[in-house]
Amino acid sequence: MERTTISHEDACIHEFSPDLEAADTVEDGASLTFETIDSLDGEIQTEDQVLESVPDDVNPASGPVAVEGATPGDVLEVEIEEVRVNEDRGRVVTTPGFGLLQDHDDIEHPHTRITDVEGDSITFGDLEIDIQPVVGTIGVAPEDDTYSTLVPHDHGGNLDTTDVTTGTTAYFPVFQDGAMLAMGDSKAAMADGEMCGTGAEIGTDVDVTVRVIDDPEVTLQRPLVETADSWKTIASAETMADAVERANRDLVRLLEREHDLDPTDAYLLSSLVGGLEISQVVDPLVTARNAIPKQYLTNPF
Amino acid sequence: MERTTISHEDACIHEFSPDLEAADTVEDGASLTFETIDSLDGEIQTEDQVLESVPDDVNPASGPVAVEGATPGDVLEVEIEEVRVNEDRGRVVTTPGFGLLQDHDDIEHPHTRITDVEGDSITFGDLEIDIQPVVGTIGVAPEDDTYSTLVPHDHGGNLDTTDVTTGTTAYFPVFQDGAMLAMGDSKAAMADGEMCGTGAEIGTDVDVTVRVIDDPEVTLQRPLVETADSWKTIASAETMADAVERANRDLVRLLEREHDLDPTDAYLLSSLVGGLEISQVVDPLVTARNAIPKQYLTNPF
Repeated sequence: MERTTISHEDACIHEFSPDLEAADTVEDGASLTFETIDSLDGEIQTEDQVLESVPDDVNPASGPVAVEGATPGDVLEVEIEEVRVNEDRGRVVTTPGFGLLQDHDDIEHPHTRITDVEGDSITFGDLEIDIQPVVGTIGVAPEDDTYSTLVPHDHGGNLDTTDVTTGTTAYFPVFQDGAMLAMGDSKAAMADGEMCGTGAEIGTDVDVTVRVIDDPEVTLQRPLVETADSWKTIASAETMADAVERANRDLVRLLEREHDLDPTDAYLLSSLVGGLEISQVVDPLVTARNAIPKQYLTNPF
Repeated sequence: MERTTISHEDACIHEFSPDLEAADTVEDGASLTFETIDSLDGEIQTEDQVLESVPDDVNPASGPVAVEGATPGDVLEVEIEEVRVNEDRGRVVTTPGFGLLQDHDDIEHPHTRITDVEGDSITFGDLEIDIQPVVGTIGVAPEDDTYSTLVPHDHGGNLDTTDVTTGTTAYFPVFQDGAMLAMGDSKAAMADGEMCGTGAEIGTDVDVTVRVIDDPEVTLQRPLVETADSWKTIASAETMADAVERANRDLVRLLEREHDLDPTDAYLLSSLVGGLEISQVVDPLVTARNAIPKQYLTNPF
């Protein structure tokens, strides 16, 4: 099967809406490549270019792609085979009114640092940082509401989750026919939390294989990610307290089913193994995940 | 040097206060063993024993021990050589009004499960869980206020941090002469987050070596933990947003000094490597940490 390529130059969204129109349609099981541009749309190329405010059209996401056979209630499996940076530099920036330390007077807003790509690393001043790419924004058409690509929610979107990287698989609820997958906002490196509001924002080519899980044994309300050794529920909310509560409740449901436990015992088990993790604390909604080692949870679908 | 033993049977506190009186005094560099009882003071031994409410005297902490030469402004280094469970069972419980899912009607409060120790594991029903002990409560005499051992704060206390375990080193600001180290509330296993309000609560013998860092090159305001590959700042606050802000700000200060960076660039660096982690989301204050790989931060003292 020839690999379909979806480039931001041809197909790009700044909102995930219920009525997205497909830029392309692929078969269930297709392998394709999303070519993405950096979250700031190429506007920041040197350190004297700063971001005076968060742009209205931030986080361009390449797509959307309809997957044949995906219908509401299904799960879309997105195997991320490889994420490759496709330009020679990333950029890590602050901008006024954004970021964890936005109210600290000794932190400059706006400020830009360029992180040059050198082989498998980026440079930050004298430091070398291994490239560990992250696809920051990835999602499908939502059920009812429209979300800017700056916002994470149950459809995915701006999850800024370091586990969305080479070798992992992300799962999304299908809310609309075709699912309508889009992605962008990659980083060459990002800390859990994305404290300053960005990682090293960079364009990437993302090789994925998409599969439709028909009639999944469990209903997915929110994204889920599978790493080499863990399953992780992902939830976004206005506060971290609410995000971790949702992520934990989703995980407890999976543990109930896997081990035939009542909700209370599944909850106790969740308090002993794996644990809560922070994806990001800077977007309009914050994002958390609840990880469980695979020895305690097999493929829930 | 003979190893001093501090047993909960002889010396035990339920509050960290500025005026703690030492149960014992050891030399700078001494190796000692803290014998701890479980956080529920041995009250829960079978599954028909439940916790109707959080006891007033929860989290008994063995100690306090004065360390000779420790004076305010110093740092107390606590190398945790080994944490051994000292009883044949742990207990994981819910209690009304406590825990992440306390308002979910399908989760029973109170509820108890006993986790038997079998070799290097505990059992949870049919499941085996590796023992990875955590010292939940560990701290020193605070500067001004008195904190129940249920509360985490800048003096340490109920940090419920999985990194406080065999092979790591915890660092505390010294606020009072002698520092006054105490610890307890261990778990045989605990997930990051401690969602149900407990791990597998269990008595432990904790072998530590304590050292006073005189005139440290950096002033410590809050606890810090060193693992095999990372340094992690630790901060507690009413909300996770505030806790991660403090943990990040503390880490940024360390990065400024290490790399001779201004605060803004240190902040950007913190957004690229390491990341925010959750210790617990259930105590009266919640606790977060900000990890940085050792390749980016050498011993700050």
